[in-house]
Amino acid sequence: MFCAMNRITVQEDYVEKFEYMFKTRAGEVDKEPGFVDVKILRPKQPGKPYIVLSFWETEANFQQWVDSGAYMKGHSRAFGDMKQAADEKRQMPMRSDMETFEVFAE
Amino acid sequence: MFCAMNRITVQEDYVEKFEYMFKTRAGEVDKEPGFVDVKILRPKQPGKPYIVLSFWETEANFQQWVDSGAYMKGHSRAFGDMKQAADEKRQMPMRSDMETFEVFAE
Repeated sequence: MFCAMNRITVQEDYVEKFEYMFKTRAGEVDKEPGFVDVKILRPKQPGKPYIVLSFWETEANFQQWVDSGAYMKGHSRAFGDMKQAADEKRQMPMRSDMETFEVFAE
Repeated sequence: MFCAMNRITVQEDYVEKFEYMFKTRAGEVDKEPGFVDVKILRPKQPGKPYIVLSFWETEANFQQWVDSGAYMKGHSRAFGDMKQAADEKRQMPMRSDMETFEVFAE
């Protein structure tokens, strides 16, 4: 099983909207081929990132979703906010760092 | 739900034993009160750590396990190797960094 761990540092004034977007997500990713599970993690330690953790049968399944129109559509609210910040030359509301893994034991 | 993410950098010559220990783990933690799930992740990107990801009903359930004799017993092989490296003034076979989270969306 493949695991994608997106480590997202969220600006303090964007935290509320960031959490709201996940709490109200449409759940479209759950219907993707090879999707297994997703968990969104709020850091308990100051200075640590939020984590979007998704599990897939294979890395190809994950990549197929990232390359899909569903991915763009599912992230349209966040991407819109990023574009607006860039247009207004403001600091980005978040930045992310993707780490990838293979689940080798459970 | 609480999530403990132990990020473990493993020396190259210890990787095989590290993986073996998880593949042959006794599964004792699974019987602990409040235990939900555990997944062990092998990094796909060079220089990134292994991850031991465990999910618990509450942080108190996790802490209770860490403070238990079962935790010491379950880690006795790894702790033995760490002690031996220290006694022989060799580099530690691994070092770990614990991050803690609350699962706020799924």
